Amino acid sequence: MKIAIIFGGSSFEHEISIVSAITLKGGLKKHTPVFIFVDSSRNFYLIESGNMKSKFFSSKDYLKKGKKLNLVKGGFEAPGMFGAKKVDFDVALNLIHGRDGEDGKMAALLEFFGVKYISPRVEASVLSYNKLYTKLLAESLNIKTIPYEVLNRGESREITLDFPVIIKPVRLGSSIGVSVVKSKEELDYALDVAFEFDDQVLVESFIEGIKEYNQAGALGKDWILSIIEEPQKEEFLDFDKKYMDFARDSRVSEANISEELKEKIRNSFKKIYDPLFRGAVIRCDFFVLENEVYLNEINPIPGSMANYLFDDFDKVLSEVATNLPKEKKIKIDYLYINSIQKAKGKA
Amino acid sequence: MKIAIIFGGSSFEHEISIVSAITLKGGLKKHTPVFIFVDSSRNFYLIESGNMKSKFFSSKDYLKKGKKLNLVKGGFEAPGMFGAKKVDFDVALNLIHGRDGEDGKMAALLEFFGVKYISPRVEASVLSYNKLYTKLLAESLNIKTIPYEVLNRGESREITLDFPVIIKPVRLGSSIGVSVVKSKEELDYALDVAFEFDDQVLVESFIEGIKEYNQAGALGKDWILSIIEEPQKEEFLDFDKKYMDFARDSRVSEANISEELKEKIRNSFKKIYDPLFRGAVIRCDFFVLENEVYLNEINPIPGSMANYLFDDFDKVLSEVATNLPKEKKIKIDYLYINSIQKAKGKA
Repeated sequence: MKIAIIFGGSSFEHEISIVSAITLKGGLKKHTPVFIFVDSSRNFYLIESGNMKSKFFSSKDYLKKGKKLNLVKGGFEAPGMFGAKKVDFDVALNLIHGRDGEDGKMAALLEFFGVKYISPRVEASVLSYNKLYTKLLAESLNIKTIPYEVLNRGESREITLDFPVIIKPVRLGSSIGVSVVKSKEELDYALDVAFEFDDQVLVESFIEGIKEYNQAGALGKDWILSIIEEPQKEEFLDFDKKYMDFARDSRVSEANISEELKEKIRNSFKKIYDPLFRGAVIRCDFFVLENEVYLNEINPIPGSMANYLFDDFDKVLSEVATNLPKEKKIKIDYLYINSIQKAKGKA
Repeated sequence: MKIAIIFGGSSFEHEISIVSAITLKGGLKKHTPVFIFVDSSRNFYLIESGNMKSKFFSSKDYLKKGKKLNLVKGGFEAPGMFGAKKVDFDVALNLIHGRDGEDGKMAALLEFFGVKYISPRVEASVLSYNKLYTKLLAESLNIKTIPYEVLNRGESREITLDFPVIIKPVRLGSSIGVSVVKSKEELDYALDVAFEFDDQVLVESFIEGIKEYNQAGALGKDWILSIIEEPQKEEFLDFDKKYMDFARDSRVSEANISEELKEKIRNSFKKIYDPLFRGAVIRCDFFVLENEVYLNEINPIPGSMANYLFDDFDKVLSEVATNLPKEKKIKIDYLYINSIQKAKGKA
């Protein structure tokens, strides 16, 4: 299968997405990747596989050596002297992290232009990109989350949760703008940092030593769930460490937990995934406290698609690509307008 | 101001949107409308103002007489022998009802391509297009809603609410697929109808004789709120009646309620609107029961923009257009990739 990997974007995670695409290239054994880069001005470029090195982008070589593309009905095409040439691929894969990719914009573009694509759809993107809406979604599915409050830029900074707390801009991934605050004195600075990135900030209880487990997966014809990983981490991942996480490609070992707890985690994952995330490969990060599963966050487009969590990642993509959600066909017959016209004696 | 009114779309409400655009044309006194039609195949056409008659679309005259457009960086252009010609306008106005317009896709397109636009943004669209997410949003803002349950296609149809109930597909507007169910015997048929349009259905308590009040508005430099209307209706509006509602252009009279209740309605509207709906003119439909305000639904793109609820609708549009939310500028400097390169000795 030819898979068009769309990466880059006007996003704080633009560079992460480049690293993620390069890593994913190494993770595909059977499929052939086609690389479509979205630069910071949101122009599309076709990138030859041999040029998939980070320096090709940071040096802006892509401006000269990449082929500029237009998004058109059914795909992308390169304009040329003798007519436009369509880029050949079977399915697109949205690998833009953060804005443009995870906020629903890329899904909307691909859906509107009728391009087959692997990605969370618009609704799923919006609900998982925003950490407050993720909480509301989890609550509606009866999945527990950690106690939280929301602060708005320019409004009161009074919080009622006990310290320590963790501060997160509501709309970013990759730990950007996130900090752990141990006392009231540190709060203002952490909020200043977080408000640099968003107008709304989530304040959550920070629970020392809480166990975290990651479950990735997708629904093809059947469920394909990854192993459950217990990420190795310090107090929590800072941006640099998390960044490197996007470049991971080696297999990880499975968390050493009871089968019963694994089943709880898998069931929570399935509840969240189906039907909202059909068409996507996502990773959910859970906390476990006293044998209860809490949703920490949903990664709608995990770094390098969390390929390292699966035994046969090519198969995951094939399965998802052949079971994509289909847009409802809407027949527009103008019956209504015709009937009005008739009533008015104009038809 | 030149306002590009984008209407049509691949939507069950395609025809409604045409009627809405024709009506809005009559509602603009000072601004000049430019009409951009999205046909059922999602092609864009520039429509001359003189051709804005419903028959022009139902007869498919637009295929011959409309000018086909491409969505490009910063706007729309008509390709031509001597180069492409940009369509001239100051701001776009998203008037696509239902899918493509209210589900966030048009907002995503315009945002991505850097076109200034009046419309709910992607997040606001997703939360208001889906009646379940509207409930979650209202709850998170401490605004009451009517008791409800959610049913999924193919799953149990047991409900615990007492009859009568009202059945609504979660994702459609304009009363399509909606019915009032008075007894258990009628439930199956009503659900069959609703599931024709969506995979998820909302079941709400139907409260006989509940009062409904509509408040439209927007935030420009200051709040611009419409009069509060008490819609005249029978048991509830069916599709035909609601359809005609989109063609309304005459001024309506204000609801005869206490100033205190009006203030409650206005405050609920403001809570919902700000900051999520900045950049849009929306209408919220509220119920009032024992002097308490309940959110019924949010119309993110009301029929003909609810222009009939405002004294000076041109001013509403000017105010919103000059106070649109600005996208955060993200500078991509490749500092990170450069530092990795350096560390590897490759820079």
